[in-house]
Amino acid sequence: MYRQRLTIDTRGRGTYEITRQVQQVVERSEVAEGLCHVFIHHTSASLIVCENADPTVRRDLETYAARLAPDGDPSYIHDAEGPDDMAAHLRSILTLTSLTVPVASRQCDLGIWQGIFLWEHRTSPHRRRITITVVGDEGEPD
Amino acid sequence: MYRQRLTIDTRGRGTYEITRQVQQVVERSEVAEGLCHVFIHHTSASLIVCENADPTVRRDLETYAARLAPDGDPSYIHDAEGPDDMAAHLRSILTLTSLTVPVASRQCDLGIWQGIFLWEHRTSPHRRRITITVVGDEGEPD
Amino acid sequence: MYRQRLTIDTRGRGTYEITRQVQQVVERSEVAEGLCHVFIHHTSASLIVCENADPTVRRDLETYAARLAPDGDPSYIHDAEGPDDMAAHLRSILTLTSLTVPVASRQCDLGIWQGIFLWEHRTSPHRRRITITVVGDEGEPD
Repeated sequence: MYRQRLTIDTRGRGTYEITRQVQQVVERSEVAEGLCHVFIHHTSASLIVCENADPTVRRDLETYAARLAPDGDPSYIHDAEGPDDMAAHLRSILTLTSLTVPVASRQCDLGIWQGIFLWEHRTSPHRRRITITVVGDEGEPD
Repeated sequence: MYRQRLTIDTRGRGTYEITRQVQQVVERSEVAEGLCHVFIHHTSASLIVCENADPTVRRDLETYAARLAPDGDPSYIHDAEGPDDMAAHLRSILTLTSLTVPVASRQCDLGIWQGIFLWEHRTSPHRRRITITVVGDEGEPD
Repeated sequence: MYRQRLTIDTRGRGTYEITRQVQQVVERSEVAEGLCHVFIHHTSASLIVCENADPTVRRDLETYAARLAPDGDPSYIHDAEGPDDMAAHLRSILTLTSLTVPVASRQCDLGIWQGIFLWEHRTSPHRRRITITVVGDEGEPD
């Protein structure tokens, strides 16, 4: 088992690709065949696997989220940290706090268009903590 | 590998924090560094990681779910067990059946505001089965 | 650790149960107690755990998705591959790319009504790649 923690400083709401950082941890782990687990220690930012070639996908995703879980909805009671507070929790719950990817031949075995993204749901910049855990063995699979 | 099964008796629709129970299983497992996997064996109740300090978050979440996947929607064909039946399946699919959390220093390494909750989507009380699996090693990480 | 790759040819949008194939991989793995991880290498098809007894659940799910993330929404910028392109990415993000199920007594320990499904979100047939990884040990749990 190999573990590494990352800190990502976001510039506020939006998607931040972390595929390269996750890949670097897998390389350092020396695990050849296994699984890579990514976890975000927050409830107002989340993880997604998303198409990483065309940035309009992530622009549309943001537009969509604004409709699916809008800021400042009059039904929200929880607004301690502003109109984006409850919207951020909802978007986090509808996406992921943890995800796991196969490791094959010392690489994250992602599909050709798959990237791993941190999705910051708060409008202001935040420092986000991520833990990456790699399990498996250094040889070939059975 | 250490495994323990839990039974949670719900009082009907709502969120039930299980962080403490999951933590106790991690302690009993004697795994110091690794991963803790939580699985719910149902399709009308689910798991979420949610802010656990302010209960208004979970009140808003319930209000939100009532709009996102309402009971008794006229478009539902499946209503064998009542107007909350299909709504429960939809809410389950939009959230989680399984989640995985890092274990560090014999603890679930959750963020300061993160709690693990069983979300009961049926309006009547149900007995829910959960399986917790802890993997890793008893020493320190690499 | 045991790994096997599957290729699923879909006939276009819809849900395809893969529980039996996942179960067969678990049996071949000879892992008695552990975890089974399923990963789909795409961003326009996804995985869900869903009620597998009454097909009306999955019919309602499709109807629901058409309202939750409609094809050809005027707000989408990304439509390179047609009106179902962005809708497929959104449905993928709202469901799962990876899921993990306990393995007990050489079986996927699913609930009695739980099935694992590939959900094809594109309207046309696609060839989809899935990787199944089984970890654990061949003896009994602690």
